[in-house]
Amino acid sequence: VTRPGRPPGDSGTRTAILTAARSLFAEVGYDRASIRAIARRAGVDAALVHHYYGTKDDLLTAAVRLPGAAGPLLASAFTDPDRVGDALIRGFLGLWESPTVRDHMLALIRTALTHPAAAAILRGVVTREAMLPITTHLALPHAQLRAELTGTHLIGLALGRYGLGLEPLASADIDTIAAAVGPTLQRYLTDPELLPR
Amino acid sequence: VTRPGRPPGDSGTRTAILTAARSLFAEVGYDRASIRAIARRAGVDAALVHHYYGTKDDLLTAAVRLPGAAGPLLASAFTDPDRVGDALIRGFLGLWESPTVRDHMLALIRTALTHPAAAAILRGVVTREAMLPITTHLALPHAQLRAELTGTHLIGLALGRYGLGLEPLASADIDTIAAAVGPTLQRYLTDPELLPR
Repeated sequence: VTRPGRPPGDSGTRTAILTAARSLFAEVGYDRASIRAIARRAGVDAALVHHYYGTKDDLLTAAVRLPGAAGPLLASAFTDPDRVGDALIRGFLGLWESPTVRDHMLALIRTALTHPAAAAILRGVVTREAMLPITTHLALPHAQLRAELTGTHLIGLALGRYGLGLEPLASADIDTIAAAVGPTLQRYLTDPELLPR
Repeated sequence: VTRPGRPPGDSGTRTAILTAARSLFAEVGYDRASIRAIARRAGVDAALVHHYYGTKDDLLTAAVRLPGAAGPLLASAFTDPDRVGDALIRGFLGLWESPTVRDHMLALIRTALTHPAAAAILRGVVTREAMLPITTHLALPHAQLRAELTGTHLIGLALGRYGLGLEPLASADIDTIAAAVGPTLQRYLTDPELLPR
């Protein structure tokens, strides 16, 4: 609800608030990150944070939402079921190569490990938003478990490559990783014999 | 160095200090966790923490060291190269089913995402301590990258199953997960065609 006297909506300010929230949630945990401290880091008044994002829970939800670039990633994975594993690993790594996406996702993972509400959001990102549309589209049994095996493999890979800087994984080129991991994802997503019965 | 007047070594006290350190590192981050606060949580004097564990960096190293039960896991993976993937996923999940190991490892991952020294230790755990002995034993090219693909897949799986409680992954029985993931690890660890050239 916009009231008279409030400043007009400003996407720069909104972005600054979300960036400040992500970094503070990640650094000190959800419980210790006050709206006041987030506002201070963003260089705005605390009332403006409430105005744009409501409660702290609402702000958390907004801060950890899947980056907008994930849409095209998912679309590309639908184009050819025989190459979904390769398309997915390449699209996923392409997304994470962006420092903005990387910082956002690492902050989400950190926060999810210390706060149940963030964990619930990450569960939604990994399965419902990112992977389940693919497995549902492929219409095989165990769609949810396939989505989770795929999503958790990707999260672990990203943690090692971007979060921990494991070498040579961190410096490996995308073709090398796709050669190794693409067939795994292809099998998790499409192999009718993946699971018993 | 043990000096006269210090209390004798006591494995209960040492364990209490390590447990307190792990939980505090995970909750408030390495930088904010003081030796004094760790001592208070363990119910001992701060001097005793220094006596047993030296500096805070030394304490971090001790707190995040691989659980002792990992030794048998690694040994089991050496017994039959044709079944190393299956043995590894079963041994790994068996370890994580223990609440002590689970809490320890989740705390290590949380701390690693916020503190470079903990990240360095987790890198060592994933590769040198846990996976590299296996790939080195198998004596194939790209031993380090194979170790990292295997280790990060397992970390991601554990995060999803034990850290985030993703369903149905969290409730799936070990046979089901081994059927899906065992062949992946087998390929990462032993397939000569895994990587280009």
